[in-house]
Amino acid sequence: MTYCAGILVRDGLVMFADTRTNAGFDDVSTFRKLHVFETPGERVMAIATAGNLSVTQSAMSILAEGIPHPETGEPETLEHAHSMFQAAQLIGQAVRKVREEVGPALEREHINSEVSLLFGGQIRGGPMRLFMIYEAGNFIECGQDAPFLQIGEHKYGRPILVRAVNFETELYEALKIGLISIDSTMKSNLAVGLPIDLMVVRRNELRSELTHRIEADEPYFHDLSERWSEALRHAHGNIPRPPYAPGPLLQKVISPKRARGG
Amino acid sequence: MTYCAGILVRDGLVMFADTRTNAGFDDVSTFRKLHVFETPGERVMAIATAGNLSVTQSAMSILAEGIPHPETGEPETLEHAHSMFQAAQLIGQAVRKVREEVGPALEREHINSEVSLLFGGQIRGGPMRLFMIYEAGNFIECGQDAPFLQIGEHKYGRPILVRAVNFETELYEALKIGLISIDSTMKSNLAVGLPIDLMVVRRNELRSELTHRIEADEPYFHDLSERWSEALRHAHGNIPRPPYAPGPLLQKVISPKRARGG
Repeated sequence: MTYCAGILVRDGLVMFADTRTNAGFDDVSTFRKLHVFETPGERVMAIATAGNLSVTQSAMSILAEGIPHPETGEPETLEHAHSMFQAAQLIGQAVRKVREEVGPALEREHINSEVSLLFGGQIRGGPMRLFMIYEAGNFIECGQDAPFLQIGEHKYGRPILVRAVNFETELYEALKIGLISIDSTMKSNLAVGLPIDLMVVRRNELRSELTHRIEADEPYFHDLSERWSEALRHAHGNIPRPPYAPGPLLQKVISPKRARGG
Repeated sequence: MTYCAGILVRDGLVMFADTRTNAGFDDVSTFRKLHVFETPGERVMAIATAGNLSVTQSAMSILAEGIPHPETGEPETLEHAHSMFQAAQLIGQAVRKVREEVGPALEREHINSEVSLLFGGQIRGGPMRLFMIYEAGNFIECGQDAPFLQIGEHKYGRPILVRAVNFETELYEALKIGLISIDSTMKSNLAVGLPIDLMVVRRNELRSELTHRIEADEPYFHDLSERWSEALRHAHGNIPRPPYAPGPLLQKVISPKRARGG
């Protein structure tokens, strides 16, 4: 299992990915799922991957070797893409290529070959963008209304993003909320786990401001988890009790002995 | 879609269920999914249902009519069960019966006939218990370490339960946290929605202390949602920023121009 997310705010971009993969709960490994491509001052891009690891790794290798241009035959890579949109198309092609090659064979073995990717960054002269790329190579773009995209085991970590992140959220505040989102996921699904790879890019800087791997014994992340638990306990304590007290005004929705049913 | 949960604390039991069902996003209806069976002073039980509505409704009807005892042939209902365990077995039988009857036909139509149920309550002379019943009629019981069970669209609402509920949580505090859990789910999945049916039973009282339907325009629930959003914003604001500041000590995990890969 995997959990990756990208948060695109006014200040810039945060992306993170866990590193755990598993083929059943007795076969858990650590693999990099956040790949950063950077030519400082010129372009900075990152891909986060979820789904069948053999498919995403092959797609990454195809991208690294380059996809022949349909007319010139020249191998095209992310380093040559003129825009984030063209780069996203290239990644889509790479994913489609792998799926076409191995998809039917995997299907025969009843192995799920589904994948999804996040692709974010900025190329000089163009805007900072964040995309989610599906297994067919098609993709959607992150907007300002809900300025984040998630792939993999995304549900446990979604409520905090929905409520706490908006386009004006400061960059490292967005990172912090992202880490809370991961921590919430890890608390519910053991197949998502440390280490966590992360990247922070400030808008128009065209270089990563921060890349970091959070290891299992890191005190900050442990402290964040503790403080968040404590904060949640206080948070609900400050909300008034439900006013549905038992008493003569209570509207019973059932009759004694049996439910009204339906 | 559905979200139901039961919380079993020292003081008693809280159960709640949304009422939305849908066959595609253009066919959304309201159905009761929390069924209360009560003979005050003698027994109080509730069933919450998720999954294929035709299967769960048929199972409820079978239970109401009674399942013939294998030896005496007498119809057995929840009103006659001697213990919560025997009652859970009876519900399991009803589910299995429906699935055996309509399961193969539904499968041919590629219709998902999966269901899951929560069953909680207390019968005089026995302990208060909470079970999750699967489609094969087998079941598990809620323990004290994680004193809650969820069915349906459970992931969005799980993190708050994991962090905020324990066996010593006061009964109406547990209800409040349950409502936050529902609200978190509704914010992420439109197929879970108001009204919400809920029940509160105090341990050893053998009657429901509270049954209530939260309608769409109820001010308390709206206020709870607003306050929770506000509280979450404050909560993460009080956690220190990540110490991963850019600077000479930063360990770059990638080299410029291309990722170290993997």
